[in-house]
Amino acid sequence: MMNTHAARLSQFQKLIADKGLDAFLVTRPLDQYFLTGYHMNDYLLLVGRKKAWAMLPEMLCAQFRDIVSFCKAEATSVGNDVPTLVLKRVEAEGFSRVAFDMSAETYISGTMWKKHKFVPSENLSLRLRLTKQGTEIESLRKSCRVAAKAFEVIRKKVRPGQTERQVMLTLERIMQDMGASGPSFNTIIGSGPNSALPHHITGDRKLRAGEPLLLDFGCVYDHYCSDITRTIFLGKPTPEFRRVYSIVEASHDAGVKAVRSGIPCKAVDDVCRGLITDAGYGKTFMHGTGHGVGLEIHEPPRLNTKDPSMLMAGMAVTVEPGIYLHGKFGVRIEDTVLVKEKGCEILTRP
Amino acid sequence: MMNTHAARLSQFQKLIADKGLDAFLVTRPLDQYFLTGYHMNDYLLLVGRKKAWAMLPEMLCAQFRDIVSFCKAEATSVGNDVPTLVLKRVEAEGFSRVAFDMSAETYISGTMWKKHKFVPSENLSLRLRLTKQGTEIESLRKSCRVAAKAFEVIRKKVRPGQTERQVMLTLERIMQDMGASGPSFNTIIGSGPNSALPHHITGDRKLRAGEPLLLDFGCVYDHYCSDITRTIFLGKPTPEFRRVYSIVEASHDAGVKAVRSGIPCKAVDDVCRGLITDAGYGKTFMHGTGHGVGLEIHEPPRLNTKDPSMLMAGMAVTVEPGIYLHGKFGVRIEDTVLVKEKGCEILTRP
Repeated sequence: MMNTHAARLSQFQKLIADKGLDAFLVTRPLDQYFLTGYHMNDYLLLVGRKKAWAMLPEMLCAQFRDIVSFCKAEATSVGNDVPTLVLKRVEAEGFSRVAFDMSAETYISGTMWKKHKFVPSENLSLRLRLTKQGTEIESLRKSCRVAAKAFEVIRKKVRPGQTERQVMLTLERIMQDMGASGPSFNTIIGSGPNSALPHHITGDRKLRAGEPLLLDFGCVYDHYCSDITRTIFLGKPTPEFRRVYSIVEASHDAGVKAVRSGIPCKAVDDVCRGLITDAGYGKTFMHGTGHGVGLEIHEPPRLNTKDPSMLMAGMAVTVEPGIYLHGKFGVRIEDTVLVKEKGCEILTRP
Repeated sequence: MMNTHAARLSQFQKLIADKGLDAFLVTRPLDQYFLTGYHMNDYLLLVGRKKAWAMLPEMLCAQFRDIVSFCKAEATSVGNDVPTLVLKRVEAEGFSRVAFDMSAETYISGTMWKKHKFVPSENLSLRLRLTKQGTEIESLRKSCRVAAKAFEVIRKKVRPGQTERQVMLTLERIMQDMGASGPSFNTIIGSGPNSALPHHITGDRKLRAGEPLLLDFGCVYDHYCSDITRTIFLGKPTPEFRRVYSIVEASHDAGVKAVRSGIPCKAVDDVCRGLITDAGYGKTFMHGTGHGVGLEIHEPPRLNTKDPSMLMAGMAVTVEPGIYLHGKFGVRIEDTVLVKEKGCEILTRP
């Protein structure tokens, strides 16, 4: 069987040819990993229609060659830093149309490439990353299952008196012990009024009985991210919490039910937002309904009021409506789902 | 006492005025944290000579206001995304010279700012971050002490049969239990021949008796990074390991001894590299001698053959020479030190 990364590189090379380019300069470490299997900072990947070259600091060369057999490795030396190696290779190959990723290169670097007649371009490898294929789907499934299983464990361990930070550490260790390499973003443990801050910074506040607890977290497993949110209540839920929770739950469930290939991303947001707005809480749901998930925790598409794109089979997206009553409490319920021709598969299930 | 971040913002505003600018657009989250105390993605900080504004997604506004009292918060709304809010504020204030950070903005964003007559600039806040002041020094000391103490604990726990990954997880948990928020970079645990890869990717190889083990790690404590490397031997060291180790140790010790305010960064690299070259291993030391450490794990200056800058009191830098025998083993010894008028303070001490 062909190496997955080598197969992706071939697909990418077809895309380059289709665009009338001689080569594409891949800047972002996760795109480089996607196309080569090697994940590291400080290198550049120059992909031509037939060949590809990694320009690396000398100290990374041996490692790159151990991991990647299908790209040439070129090491820096005195007078030959990484960008110089790229320029020399472009000249040696006689490439005239080389594109760079204008959303990844810094302004200063992009300006330098432009001076050398490189062409600013969208990130082409994101096109291949948009719908997940083959081993990617299995990695996403595992990543999401670990997060969902970890919730089953932590929910039985949380007690009044523990700090948010203690809950976070315990949760992250549970996921690591299940094989995760780490959290996929800063774990949010929001207790009481902190649950009303969608991006609460987990701190030393102690959990109390009679308050909600919001847990928004995920892990990186085999390089792929998961994203899940659960809101629980320590003790007997108040009537207000129950009312708000049931609205968010209905919104979440309707959103998940709406997800399928061929509908606009916006349609899912409409469904979720509509239910919350009808219940009178529209103004408190002040973020989008979801986002793509993959090698990165936030990828295209966006499920919000603006994104014009359509859902496609193989996309992995979150559905995460919420209601936030500042100073009181908030509720968010989130799952990561895999878009299918008909409907979707909820990935964040134990 | 004046809020530390507010004091830094004032210093920054003086710098803006000195440069003849009306305002500076701060893009990087760590620079934003440095100047405000608020650390989050997806916002922009516009700093004028007298006032400062944070442009944020609506859902972050309440949180920002809770944490930062000395900047105005402006929330996004329909038709007003974050960049639009910046442009409107610049117009409302009548600013004519606004700079953006050309090493932080992407090419696509920088081009957009340029179209609106913003001026590309170096990262001005890095100037304030270069030499550490006040509470920064205490945070760095704590961060480095945690890393050094964690080494004392882990060195007694490593055993043949454990995997590199197990050692990594144990080590990271020890640091978290001492108050660290997490590792400051991907922890490198290199066993046997893996110790010869300066940026080895920690994996499932099992530690064996009669082999070296290289541990390169650090933590984030109170937002500040530490960086330390130790190379140990499981069992009785071979004569070759002892010889190589003693060369690296002499190089490291001479480098640390050379560090003081007023000498060129390059001079420290010269000292370390000279000793290794004289011993016949010059070609195997294929990386720089050190780098600045602070809010980021890699900051200016660089202690290598090229950086023309001078060491200044208050800089925190690493000294980390190494010898790498590919396929066999490697040795690196690294400390983070604080540059003083006369000499330096080794921070990575238990």
